[in-house]
Amino acid sequence: MFPPEALSDDGFLGGRLRILQPRQGYRAATDPVLLAAACPARAGETALELGCGAGVASLCLGHRVPGLALTGLELQPAYAALARDNAGGNGQALEVIEGDVAAPPAALRHRSFDHVIANPPWYPAGGGTPASDAGRETGLREALPLAEWIDLAARRLKPGGYLTVIQLAERLPDLLAACDRRLGSLDLLPLAPRAGRPAKRVLLRARKGGRGAFRLLAPLVLHEGAVHDGDRDSHSAWAEAVLRDGAALPFPAR
Amino acid sequence: MFPPEALSDDGFLGGRLRILQPRQGYRAATDPVLLAAACPARAGETALELGCGAGVASLCLGHRVPGLALTGLELQPAYAALARDNAGGNGQALEVIEGDVAAPPAALRHRSFDHVIANPPWYPAGGGTPASDAGRETGLREALPLAEWIDLAARRLKPGGYLTVIQLAERLPDLLAACDRRLGSLDLLPLAPRAGRPAKRVLLRARKGGRGAFRLLAPLVLHEGAVHDGDRDSHSAWAEAVLRDGAALPFPAR
Repeated sequence: MFPPEALSDDGFLGGRLRILQPRQGYRAATDPVLLAAACPARAGETALELGCGAGVASLCLGHRVPGLALTGLELQPAYAALARDNAGGNGQALEVIEGDVAAPPAALRHRSFDHVIANPPWYPAGGGTPASDAGRETGLREALPLAEWIDLAARRLKPGGYLTVIQLAERLPDLLAACDRRLGSLDLLPLAPRAGRPAKRVLLRARKGGRGAFRLLAPLVLHEGAVHDGDRDSHSAWAEAVLRDGAALPFPAR
Repeated sequence: MFPPEALSDDGFLGGRLRILQPRQGYRAATDPVLLAAACPARAGETALELGCGAGVASLCLGHRVPGLALTGLELQPAYAALARDNAGGNGQALEVIEGDVAAPPAALRHRSFDHVIANPPWYPAGGGTPASDAGRETGLREALPLAEWIDLAARRLKPGGYLTVIQLAERLPDLLAACDRRLGSLDLLPLAPRAGRPAKRVLLRARKGGRGAFRLLAPLVLHEGAVHDGDRDSHSAWAEAVLRDGAALPFPAR
């Protein structure tokens, strides 16, 4: 468990959500918020988050969609405990299951969900300098291939259920390669920091058993203007609505 | 061979290039022009087009980059002959080799090129209604997987050479899956008909032996405005420069 002094108390969704997270470990920023905002869940449905960490994505989703039954799978016990605390602190019911995406616990094996969301580790195993913090390293560097995350998601989705994933844009080839024929109707939404710039993140939505063609959507641009404008908050209107007000992301319908 | 009455004489690059092509067969439109405009070839280099058809892409490239040694590989003898005629008619030296991407002729096997360009057939083998014209069917429907086109391109490129491919956006997963570790520094440029719309085409540039990360670039938008505006030519400025003036496409450098 994290000692209290190791934690910071951070506001998400314009302070609507208070999240305790380790000062030194894997720290959530905008990615889990964008992930939650891209999930097309509706009241009464079920959602599973793979690798829920301190619970930010699931709790953002639960904030936007009341009446959703939320489950998180988390490998690191200290983060799982934190996710439970964060759920309680925000008056949400988030079931957190400890376990490994590579070897899911029995508690998950016979369940299926309307939605699976994931913000898998970004950097391939091997290359690069490891993060100095083990929790941060686990959150950022994949211990198992992206394909195993997508495989578990495909297994745990109900027929017609939706997978929503956020990932570094540079991992797009791996991400698409991981989506086998169980998943279809893939929609890829690039997220660019500024208009005209390469995407830094991609959001992928896929449907279990979907038969629609792959779509490469127009990018969403996070910031207005061509360069960072000092202290001025330059988020575009949709980003402001998503990040500050907890709105759904404008994901074009099929 | 095509009888003369089966051919139309069409202007490309604002009439700078005259192309004979069959009225009923596979007819080139903007795709080969965009493909040629995306190839970073320079004077004195060599370029190979896989599946050159009537030669539009190669001849557009040769028009923009004088002093390029151009070679086309074409399966259908009647199109190969047409490509030779079109080269001659436009005062260009295009070497056309008849042969199959799946089983390249000996004349190609020991050669390598600075650039390979390709506009491979769009639709996977199997599904859909065949085109009524055999030449059109061959040009549109893949008889062999996209991966075999990319494989031949990777083999025929010099180390450090560039592959440039145009493809339907919905085939992006197949296209990326076809790029193995011989190719790197992948740049994906989406082409969208209008701002905010999904991409209809993608241009992929890859470098043999490249080690740069995959980049998902900002889309290029072909038409100004939100809808087609009657007879008014609404091409955006870059599209006008590429399609009418034979300019290079604004492909962001690495």
